[in-house]
Amino acid sequence: MKHFLTTSLLLAVGVAATTPPTHFGVVLFPGFQALDAFGPLDVLNVFSLQQTNLTLSVLARNVSSVTTVPQTMNTTFGESAVATHTFDSPPSDLEVLIVPGGLGTRSPDLEPEIDFIRTIFPSLRYLIAVCTGNTLVARAGLLDEKKATGNKKAWSWVTAQGKKTHWIAKARWVRSSEKIWSTSGVSAGVDGALNFMETVYGEDIATGLAQYLEWNRVTDPNDDEFAAIWGAEDVLPVE
Amino acid sequence: MKHFLTTSLLLAVGVAATTPPTHFGVVLFPGFQALDAFGPLDVLNVFSLQQTNLTLSVLARNVSSVTTVPQTMNTTFGESAVATHTFDSPPSDLEVLIVPGGLGTRSPDLEPEIDFIRTIFPSLRYLIAVCTGNTLVARAGLLDEKKATGNKKAWSWVTAQGKKTHWIAKARWVRSSEKIWSTSGVSAGVDGALNFMETVYGEDIATGLAQYLEWNRVTDPNDDEFAAIWGAEDVLPVE
Repeated sequence: MKHFLTTSLLLAVGVAATTPPTHFGVVLFPGFQALDAFGPLDVLNVFSLQQTNLTLSVLARNVSSVTTVPQTMNTTFGESAVATHTFDSPPSDLEVLIVPGGLGTRSPDLEPEIDFIRTIFPSLRYLIAVCTGNTLVARAGLLDEKKATGNKKAWSWVTAQGKKTHWIAKARWVRSSEKIWSTSGVSAGVDGALNFMETVYGEDIATGLAQYLEWNRVTDPNDDEFAAIWGAEDVLPVE
Repeated sequence: MKHFLTTSLLLAVGVAATTPPTHFGVVLFPGFQALDAFGPLDVLNVFSLQQTNLTLSVLARNVSSVTTVPQTMNTTFGESAVATHTFDSPPSDLEVLIVPGGLGTRSPDLEPEIDFIRTIFPSLRYLIAVCTGNTLVARAGLLDEKKATGNKKAWSWVTAQGKKTHWIAKARWVRSSEKIWSTSGVSAGVDGALNFMETVYGEDIATGLAQYLEWNRVTDPNDDEFAAIWGAEDVLPVE
């Protein structure tokens, strides 16, 4: 019986490790960048038309709507998206987490978001950090001793948020680890998400999604003109 | 006094015609394509950081959340955005309307959306139709005797929705008229929106927005590889 249980457990672990993930989540906070979130999410929206067992959880502090309007800026222009779960009650089987950026990452009060990312990370299979969302992941300690990238316009601020990270400037995205995709600013999230799809689900899937979305895809992670445009240069970790 | 009033009126009309628009709206319906809407909207979100007098109205049948999930498909995966105005009570001073597409445009019951677009159009200064959103604008009669484009994967269906339109296949976007930008599928909405920004607000503004968004911009409206990928060809209007 013991042997049977051990074998079953190993089989279960094996299935979990080889079956592509189906449960995705996204972290939202006031002042998130719309395209950081809805770019990668729309890749998944289209994928869900063919892979119909996918689930999405939209995570925030409260189960209410979350605005893109940066609270620190002199504008009221923006959109609101609806959260489905709080950080205190996340789904138990979340597999992939998307962390967008936006001016809201400059808020002085982001401990709930950073704590959530840090706490849930060990149970995730993959994490995709987009734009200044990389600063939340860095502050959660998850980019320590790793390479990463991020928003190029905000490069000096981004890189200062992760002193133990090797920041790569000329990159559309960086594979920080087996689990982590780190993408450049805003639109780069879609190219990072498509590379994630290619790696995890296969090249044909990723190609089909890009064609559906009429997305002029960047397939080379080093193909990035924006580092030069914004004067971003690599930043080594502080020893 | 009569002369004074007439002069004031002419001045007011002159100001209205030459001042760039500040009041934007977007039409949402169940099954809208997230990136169709949030791509162009994020161009405006970033613009609002420098042009702080912009207003956005999110229009739908009801003032509630609107899901991206296509009601006709076997998926529950998607996001919800919050509407601020109903079609019955739109803001009086709407100047620019964005009409996204998505599988929701296949719904048999879209008269409220089409009626709203038809009714508000005369008071608009500009309209941006994205992807299969062009079918709603065509069904409102606003693309009759005009050139337009749309989603390339759904090309045969799209073009059948506007029998009096000259549909251009190989186009990232088409300027259907002084008032109307018609864009190709999904991601093309951002390139169309950036061309709108360049035309109405100036080239420097559009370039700055694309660089902020790290968007690999298409600046030539004829630069479109997706017509060939999806086998889309021009469709002439039925005489």
